[in-house]
Amino acid sequence: MAEPQPKTRQADFQRVALIGVGLIGGSLSLGLQNAGVVGDIIGFDRDEKALSRAIELGLIDEAAPSLGDAVADASLIILATPVGATAQMLGDVGKAAPPEAIIIDVGSVKSSLVEAAASLGSGRYFVPCHPVSGTEQSGPDAAFATLFRDRWCIVTPVPDPSTEYQTAVEKVVALWRSVGANVEIMDAAHHDLALAVTSHLPHLIAFTLVGAADDLESVAEADIIKYSAGGFRDFTRIAASDPVMWRDVFLNNKDAILEVLGRFSEELALLQRAIRWGDGPALEKTFARGRALRRAIVDAGQETPAPNFGRDQTKTPPD
Amino acid sequence: MAEPQPKTRQADFQRVALIGVGLIGGSLSLGLQNAGVVGDIIGFDRDEKALSRAIELGLIDEAAPSLGDAVADASLIILATPVGATAQMLGDVGKAAPPEAIIIDVGSVKSSLVEAAASLGSGRYFVPCHPVSGTEQSGPDAAFATLFRDRWCIVTPVPDPSTEYQTAVEKVVALWRSVGANVEIMDAAHHDLALAVTSHLPHLIAFTLVGAADDLESVAEADIIKYSAGGFRDFTRIAASDPVMWRDVFLNNKDAILEVLGRFSEELALLQRAIRWGDGPALEKTFARGRALRRAIVDAGQETPAPNFGRDQTKTPPD
Repeated sequence: MAEPQPKTRQADFQRVALIGVGLIGGSLSLGLQNAGVVGDIIGFDRDEKALSRAIELGLIDEAAPSLGDAVADASLIILATPVGATAQMLGDVGKAAPPEAIIIDVGSVKSSLVEAAASLGSGRYFVPCHPVSGTEQSGPDAAFATLFRDRWCIVTPVPDPSTEYQTAVEKVVALWRSVGANVEIMDAAHHDLALAVTSHLPHLIAFTLVGAADDLESVAEADIIKYSAGGFRDFTRIAASDPVMWRDVFLNNKDAILEVLGRFSEELALLQRAIRWGDGPALEKTFARGRALRRAIVDAGQETPAPNFGRDQTKTPPD
Repeated sequence: MAEPQPKTRQADFQRVALIGVGLIGGSLSLGLQNAGVVGDIIGFDRDEKALSRAIELGLIDEAAPSLGDAVADASLIILATPVGATAQMLGDVGKAAPPEAIIIDVGSVKSSLVEAAASLGSGRYFVPCHPVSGTEQSGPDAAFATLFRDRWCIVTPVPDPSTEYQTAVEKVVALWRSVGANVEIMDAAHHDLALAVTSHLPHLIAFTLVGAADDLESVAEADIIKYSAGGFRDFTRIAASDPVMWRDVFLNNKDAILEVLGRFSEELALLQRAIRWGDGPALEKTFARGRALRRAIVDAGQETPAPNFGRDQTKTPPD
């Protein structure tokens, strides 16, 4: 990894307010610092312990005592809070931010936020963003500078045809590219449906499977742990994600999630019936579809080709 | 990894017949060779190309022209075929195997096989085994000697109280330990239920999710591939597993799978309703259960503690 660049007066954003110093906000801050495109980074978080830790880890230069203090002189404001807090936060920031400030978020749901942005005062440029990247961990200690490298960041601009807003969007696109992301621009509704399929439904299914396993009387938890290498352990990774963040995603993208969940349930009912009737050809036909899609994801650079995710090479033996 | 030991007359099994030279059979053969506990390994597979490849890769010493030739003088016969083929294979092997031969299988369903074993002639010792280990790949090229290390192998003995049979079970337990596996002995019905939870249902869900995504008209496959890092890509790993092997698992463990699938569907319906009604606390409560179970699996040495399965450290950039 490249050494952090010295901070210069040529930084694209002289003063950055980072609201929320967890995995995503902290990683973005580290990436921007390494790219040398930002000046001072002022952090704010309701969790004071996280805020001190963010200073220790170099995620921020200083901690602000309030949201208003954090954003007062900022040219870039990053809202890296759970989706449910962001709409409220956006209203508060709109009142406190200096004119011409660019505001971005990083949340996994966009339509509800674009609606909330309509009440922002003019002269503040809100550009909704969603970097499709993360790990199952959370908090400042989970942050790392290369989190967004080779991943996609989706930008869903609000309906503002002004030249100033278009310039702000261009700056935000450049910001994501500076941390190694590919950028795609689309409308919020399309984003919310695409992510319902590729992210929200998989998380719901993983949470459900882990919950159902936890409820069985007939199989002991010790057995589930021992034999988890049969497949179950894969699901526990995303089921270990931040519960509050995911609660907010489901509450804020209800319609799209219920739609794709309906499709999933139909498909599951068909396979259930095929099992009950012993319809081998139907099962084999469905099962045969997985390999091609995985190969395409690996070829697109979005997944490792190593068997078992290469996890065996990183395994730490138990004490 | 230790160098293969020279073959000695002290090998536990002087002549081994390996029926099926894919991922599991090939890996077991390599592991046993490295442990120095086997003499010559004679392979048989209906797929002649796989059989030649197995010789090239050192999975077997020679290829037999028929099942009968492979097992003729074997003291250990390993059936590493898809579950659906194993019952028939067991009958054929029973007729051709020499007296005192120990026969094991490696399949993911046990009750149906224990029933089939009842028709085996006396003096042949069939010990059903299931190493809970694998990758999403298949075929001889996917085999590697350490596949079973630190994983569990479940042994489900048939109801034979004879001293000879108990000795055979002990030899089989020692065999699995020699390749690094932990061994658990249990009855076949308990195995089939535990594995329905930890392996069969997760595979069914993963196959279903990938199939449902493939069917959507509203979200393009290109979007699914691009944004798969949001969670979807995790499911494509086990959905890329061998379709014939998994078809046989579902056809042969129908009752246990339908039972746990029912529990999963109930849990999913509850979460669907919580989303529809906007019941945040119910969602958060379910979601919060994932972390503890994952931590327990990591602590038990069955999963890497590295974020994202450590896959980012093994990622090969696209061409």
